[in-house]
Amino acid sequence: MALIARLEGLSVRYAQKLFEGRGESFSEYVRQQRLEHCRIDLADPNHAHESVAAIGQRWGFRDQSHFSRTFGATFGMSPRQVRRARSQTDEAYPLRGKPDGRKSAAARPAPMLQGAMDRPPTARARERTDHWHLPATAETVHWGFFSRSLPPVLRVDPGDSVTVETLTQHAGDDWQRMVAGDSGAESVFDWSPEHKRVDRRGAGPANASIFGRGAGEGFGVHIMTGPIYVRGAEPGDVLEIEFVEIRPRPSAAFPGKAFASNVSAWWGYQYHDLLDRDAKRETVTIFEIDMRCPAAARPLYSYEWQPQTDPFGVVHATIDYPGIPVDHSKVSHRDLSGSDVRIPARLHFGCIAVAPREADLVDSIPPGYFGGNIDNWRIGAGAKLYLPVAVQGALLSLGDGHFAQSDGEINGTGLECSLTGDIIIKLHKAGEGCPAFLRGLNSPLIETEHSWVIQSFSHPNYLRDLGSNAQSDVYKTSTIELALRNAFRQTRRFIMQTYDLTEDEVLSIMSLAADFGITQVADGNFGVHATITKAVFGERQHSQRTARP
Amino acid sequence: MALIARLEGLSVRYAQKLFEGRGESFSEYVRQQRLEHCRIDLADPNHAHESVAAIGQRWGFRDQSHFSRTFGATFGMSPRQVRRARSQTDEAYPLRGKPDGRKSAAARPAPMLQGAMDRPPTARARERTDHWHLPATAETVHWGFFSRSLPPVLRVDPGDSVTVETLTQHAGDDWQRMVAGDSGAESVFDWSPEHKRVDRRGAGPANASIFGRGAGEGFGVHIMTGPIYVRGAEPGDVLEIEFVEIRPRPSAAFPGKAFASNVSAWWGYQYHDLLDRDAKRETVTIFEIDMRCPAAARPLYSYEWQPQTDPFGVVHATIDYPGIPVDHSKVSHRDLSGSDVRIPARLHFGCIAVAPREADLVDSIPPGYFGGNIDNWRIGAGAKLYLPVAVQGALLSLGDGHFAQSDGEINGTGLECSLTGDIIIKLHKAGEGCPAFLRGLNSPLIETEHSWVIQSFSHPNYLRDLGSNAQSDVYKTSTIELALRNAFRQTRRFIMQTYDLTEDEVLSIMSLAADFGITQVADGNFGVHATITKAVFGERQHSQRTARP
Repeated sequence: MALIARLEGLSVRYAQKLFEGRGESFSEYVRQQRLEHCRIDLADPNHAHESVAAIGQRWGFRDQSHFSRTFGATFGMSPRQVRRARSQTDEAYPLRGKPDGRKSAAARPAPMLQGAMDRPPTARARERTDHWHLPATAETVHWGFFSRSLPPVLRVDPGDSVTVETLTQHAGDDWQRMVAGDSGAESVFDWSPEHKRVDRRGAGPANASIFGRGAGEGFGVHIMTGPIYVRGAEPGDVLEIEFVEIRPRPSAAFPGKAFASNVSAWWGYQYHDLLDRDAKRETVTIFEIDMRCPAAARPLYSYEWQPQTDPFGVVHATIDYPGIPVDHSKVSHRDLSGSDVRIPARLHFGCIAVAPREADLVDSIPPGYFGGNIDNWRIGAGAKLYLPVAVQGALLSLGDGHFAQSDGEINGTGLECSLTGDIIIKLHKAGEGCPAFLRGLNSPLIETEHSWVIQSFSHPNYLRDLGSNAQSDVYKTSTIELALRNAFRQTRRFIMQTYDLTEDEVLSIMSLAADFGITQVADGNFGVHATITKAVFGERQHSQRTARP
Repeated sequence: MALIARLEGLSVRYAQKLFEGRGESFSEYVRQQRLEHCRIDLADPNHAHESVAAIGQRWGFRDQSHFSRTFGATFGMSPRQVRRARSQTDEAYPLRGKPDGRKSAAARPAPMLQGAMDRPPTARARERTDHWHLPATAETVHWGFFSRSLPPVLRVDPGDSVTVETLTQHAGDDWQRMVAGDSGAESVFDWSPEHKRVDRRGAGPANASIFGRGAGEGFGVHIMTGPIYVRGAEPGDVLEIEFVEIRPRPSAAFPGKAFASNVSAWWGYQYHDLLDRDAKRETVTIFEIDMRCPAAARPLYSYEWQPQTDPFGVVHATIDYPGIPVDHSKVSHRDLSGSDVRIPARLHFGCIAVAPREADLVDSIPPGYFGGNIDNWRIGAGAKLYLPVAVQGALLSLGDGHFAQSDGEINGTGLECSLTGDIIIKLHKAGEGCPAFLRGLNSPLIETEHSWVIQSFSHPNYLRDLGSNAQSDVYKTSTIELALRNAFRQTRRFIMQTYDLTEDEVLSIMSLAADFGITQVADGNFGVHATITKAVFGERQHSQRTARP
């Protein structure tokens, strides 16, 4: 137990308390941890000179063939494949996120940017009994990162409702339609040669000393409204966010319309597999939504990205930094207004996070146990999202509005759209009163009227599990196979625990009624989710059951 | 072109004709073929002594780093990973299907079985104008394999409808409920110490000289009703199967009921990842369906598989051969009749195949371009399935009834249930009259009232692409990553061609409205499918458009 506490960076007493709530056996837990550490070391260039056997032995696997088998059964890859995957990926393509140490040398020289102070300590929010309105302004957003150190912009009690405005980081793709005349958006996107109001965009260095793209380096891109401090929330508790309504933010300049952008981006799954592989391109498509009938969006026009010079003079050959105001004299429009393509509405926030506790500045792109960039369209109006609280007050933020997205997010983005949501925030305290279905929650859980959606990832807690280069390595080591393995295990555990069924019963149910889908292969940490209708469980009422004594 | 003809084993003239119908450019096609051949050689033990570079050079990739990049972009794995994946998998677990040459030595001695003549040359089918009834009897089924050489049991004209009876290969799991008193099932399952009416079960040797499991070795397990010869069907045409209605086969011994079996089997995804890894087990669960209200199935009882001695005296420690009548005095029942678990109905045939042309005896388990064990529950009543015809007369067979199954088929089986279907068989001839959405079809396509479902696999044509050990290697080299790569490409091609849209438009639509799901990881050749609502395409009528001149 003392060892576990050390591994996890917790006090022994706190670790004991946490462990009491888990369903796993102690030895199974320890074995998993040893395997996780083997995986981390295999992927770590600092251990590249060691043999696979030596790494196995360090973590207590003396028999190498047993080690390979166990490792393979757990991760779906052999130890050697993990090592190789890392080195291969490393060389193959540019990846989003922070590069590891070896790469910084190749960076562009960093332009001198003014100060690193990211945001003012306070922001406004208007109170009305137990309902709050949180506007999106330069004072209420953080851009491209999560942090346990951010001062909250709103403090609520459990049970309060909040109307949260969010802005899409793609509004600069058509400034006239999505920024101009909208005072909130104008304050967030405010950027002139002399002044950049929200300077930090991403979890990189504020002086952009790695690539010189800009403060934060765009290691993370989402404009997040928040954080919201939830009174009484402590690590081990579960935060519930119920989405009552979600609506597009109307355009200020085009009354009765809203607009959205989709980008076939360089980080998309398609980029290295275009029909003409020698004509790599990023294509932006602007869509229009008629506010009187917002059931679908229609394409308006598209353009191929051309190098854009941002107001500070940095040239962006690709979309490597968020919020660049696109100069439309530099791109060529293709008119799509006559197209009869219609994208059905699936409004949701792509990114909903509580602050992770493992690191202070966390790239907003790879999702994890803390939520973040989940990109699952099922978190729409009527749905509830459950997230494990990791720091005091939870520090909830929302952003990355999507008018629509489908499973896979195959070109790298959804239909990026500024959205406003009405949410209710609830808190489930750890301990005896915690409903069985939330005990030991260690990854986002989605509940809709008729279904459970168990969300998993290639690395559910990559910040803890991937070592000191986690925010770089998560982009290199994610596979769908790993995400399915984790989703399988989480789903098994969830159903067994929630409905008090045996493993054999649950395996059968999972093969007959749990649909496994590919959430996204766009966000560094790939997602696989399982959807299962509650009708399977008949009269069993999960919500009335609390934890077993 | 002469080269292609040689690669494909076709006449030059026929190859030219086929190629005219494809959307790809010639050079892209050739490049893909070269890459495919590299992959085959990398996975082939006969080439294990050669370097990766040498293999690349043989297929015209002179620059090794270019080769690695291109290969990785195409398959999502480096050449070395493909080679390693093969050798790893080889050693790790037992796999279904035919082992490659190196393993035969370890086989059990083959018992002497009577003759190899698999089936009588003719079978019965009753005619009624343009509607046919095809019962399931020992004379109308083939078990565990597809073959272009099987004599048809029914000949129909395009447009005819057929009521097809099918039997589940799991009926022996509860003989009393699923076989006894049912003359069709009794004839198919008829097996005594002296006599086995349907001897061959699988594509293995009829004398069971590899493992000694029984004729065909269980390399393929599905009881297939058919084949049905469709007059006028030729290679290059597309067969359409419309499912009008599907219903469970009532139990003869338990009036008003039907029964089904689900097995957490040794080939399932869960088998090497059970909570207690030292307690490997196969669990059979028998479900009951009330024929008055067949909207759901409820569990009745379950048992753990114990070694079973078949009527010929062969002991089956695991479920390695289909149709074994389980001796219930050897297993311990767990009563589940009080469970409130209910599995919602999703009736479909897991296995629907036209005969492949690449090999004569084909294991029924890995699906492919020819359909087969697709295991996609969306092929239910109201849906249409399109399959590319590969041999004269198409030779359509159906089987593997599922009362339900979910995406993933995670424990290895669906809710296996004898089903009867009313189908309409149509034919779309190649050439000018062929609708655009079917041109160049090279993998199963599913159409429902509101959606397209594009079905792909790790290896869409493994029989052609994986060399002489294809039926063994397909089990070793399949990954979800490969299946997603193929599904992505197929979906792009399908939408571009069907709706006459540009690649950029289609990539955007795919990220916003095409849901990628994991069809199954149970069948050797893994499945990924994309579902897209037709509403996206507004007024565009795919069905009225024919091919461009």
